[in-house]
Amino acid sequence: MVDIALVGATGAVGQEVLQLLEKGNIPISKLRCFSSQRSQGKTIVFKGQELPLEVLSPNAFIGCDNVIFCAGSKISKEWVPIALQAGALVIDSSSFFRMDPTVPLIIPEINPHAIQSHHRLIASPNCSTTIMLMALAPLHRYVPIKRIVAATYQAASGAGAQAMRELKEETQCYLNQHPFERSVMPFPYAFNLFTHNSVLTESGYVEEELKMLHETRKILEEEKIHVHATCVRVPVLRAHSEALNITFHDKITVEEAYAILRKAPGVTVLEDRANNRFPMPIDAMGKHTVFCGRIREDHSYPQTLDLWVVGDQLLKGAALNAVQILDLYHS
Amino acid sequence: MVDIALVGATGAVGQEVLQLLEKGNIPISKLRCFSSQRSQGKTIVFKGQELPLEVLSPNAFIGCDNVIFCAGSKISKEWVPIALQAGALVIDSSSFFRMDPTVPLIIPEINPHAIQSHHRLIASPNCSTTIMLMALAPLHRYVPIKRIVAATYQAASGAGAQAMRELKEETQCYLNQHPFERSVMPFPYAFNLFTHNSVLTESGYVEEELKMLHETRKILEEEKIHVHATCVRVPVLRAHSEALNITFHDKITVEEAYAILRKAPGVTVLEDRANNRFPMPIDAMGKHTVFCGRIREDHSYPQTLDLWVVGDQLLKGAALNAVQILDLYHS
Repeated sequence: MVDIALVGATGAVGQEVLQLLEKGNIPISKLRCFSSQRSQGKTIVFKGQELPLEVLSPNAFIGCDNVIFCAGSKISKEWVPIALQAGALVIDSSSFFRMDPTVPLIIPEINPHAIQSHHRLIASPNCSTTIMLMALAPLHRYVPIKRIVAATYQAASGAGAQAMRELKEETQCYLNQHPFERSVMPFPYAFNLFTHNSVLTESGYVEEELKMLHETRKILEEEKIHVHATCVRVPVLRAHSEALNITFHDKITVEEAYAILRKAPGVTVLEDRANNRFPMPIDAMGKHTVFCGRIREDHSYPQTLDLWVVGDQLLKGAALNAVQILDLYHS
Repeated sequence: MVDIALVGATGAVGQEVLQLLEKGNIPISKLRCFSSQRSQGKTIVFKGQELPLEVLSPNAFIGCDNVIFCAGSKISKEWVPIALQAGALVIDSSSFFRMDPTVPLIIPEINPHAIQSHHRLIASPNCSTTIMLMALAPLHRYVPIKRIVAATYQAASGAGAQAMRELKEETQCYLNQHPFERSVMPFPYAFNLFTHNSVLTESGYVEEELKMLHETRKILEEEKIHVHATCVRVPVLRAHSEALNITFHDKITVEEAYAILRKAPGVTVLEDRANNRFPMPIDAMGKHTVFCGRIREDHSYPQTLDLWVVGDQLLKGAALNAVQILDLYHS
């Protein structure tokens, strides 16, 4: 029996964590839910029981064995050290500690061994990185990957529950020809798209693109692998899609790649070539598996294949991976 | 004074051609508009005059000097030869004759000289190809391009006016949680995306992707250039976006690329790095210019830059280019 505290319980990822814990195999002795000031006084229902929403405070984590953080980097930066000090095991889904060399960055299907070096803090990777690596890590183990050119088609959910709501509201206003005032996204989103709204760095890359590079290197323990990404926010609700152009160090055939991915854990090959049908965001919504397909030989460069992947941003991209890390830790 | 016949006058592209002719510089002595049986008996208004919508017939083009076809490949295949036989100059925006070696494939800003070899039939290129080449051809002339890896974010308009209407209707139904029956697109389109709905060929590439390769080679007169594309239909109304990863035969700096594109005809560099703002579909809607920006050095491969382009699919991607070809021919 484990007791769990969840920070960010009312957010898009937190809500998915709650559902996973409700349906999951981990026997829970006690669950505490933390959220922002805004939700104070409210409750949430877990396994038929009403639980109060608590506000973070310096002594909040005393007596907590396991804390899952899914409230973003700012909250993690401030409160993860306090949870650690209180003696808890912390699983952090924010980006704040991911590149800390003392913190394992885990995708349980890919690098479970890395959890052994933990100091009670384990990070869960960026959503685009996780969805990409679920399909690429098994290929990389067969023939090492040299370089990935990625273009992403990212959903609103990556910017939180409010962004999903705003996309729907703005789209409704657009269709009704009513004016709309945005409060979450930086640019019009209805029937529009824009460069991923993470910080644009001096290098010209947005942070999301750099996460895909650096987190991939850490997870695959391969400092020389290149990931060159263009990250784009498209008007889709909660599943990310990615067009991946992958150059390997040696020859790998389309057939070999299919055979590997058909056996890969957490991955589903989905395609119906007769109908030009490949994974779509609506296939992945609410699903635990990452869908892939459309493997093509790239005739423009040696040892290069194309792959199309789609995964639920809130599940394998965030909540599910965090809960799987908890499972892995307690198994 | 020229007389013009327009085939496909009620379609998404045809409607844009009419507006361009109405506002344009070509002095028109007579305009005839052809459309499908469905529109028979209806009229359209051009420069304040009501014009009947005519149906194609074997003698339809007798006496026509210039015919613009924008009704798709099937119509062009059947009726372009008849228009040619009637002695007309034909500008065809469909794909049917584009790769015919006796037919020039023209983007007036890029290869106007190629028009000289025409035999009264001139083809206008694929929309994704045109939008891409408007930005790439000027760079290619400075330092030759070796290989392009492209990921597209294509709008509904490429599938016609009905697809644009269907995207809006389906989205409205989704928001109201009402069922919706599609008749144009093959897959759910509201808040979803899918592989470009052109024919999937044996090679694993859809026709749109092969057009980007073959038409680029023809327009740039460069049989060795590689274009490796992944074409995706996103829920956007009428502007295509493209993430382009471009490997050159020699070094070209980010600064040089910006300097070239700032001077390129029909191209506008649009960006505001302080606000992580780059071209978006809503910037391009209704505009004649192709917008580009986000030029980055790709640190993962030598002599490689990234570029982001956005253009109105109906204008420079189709109608505008066809009208510009007519202008070029008569200039």
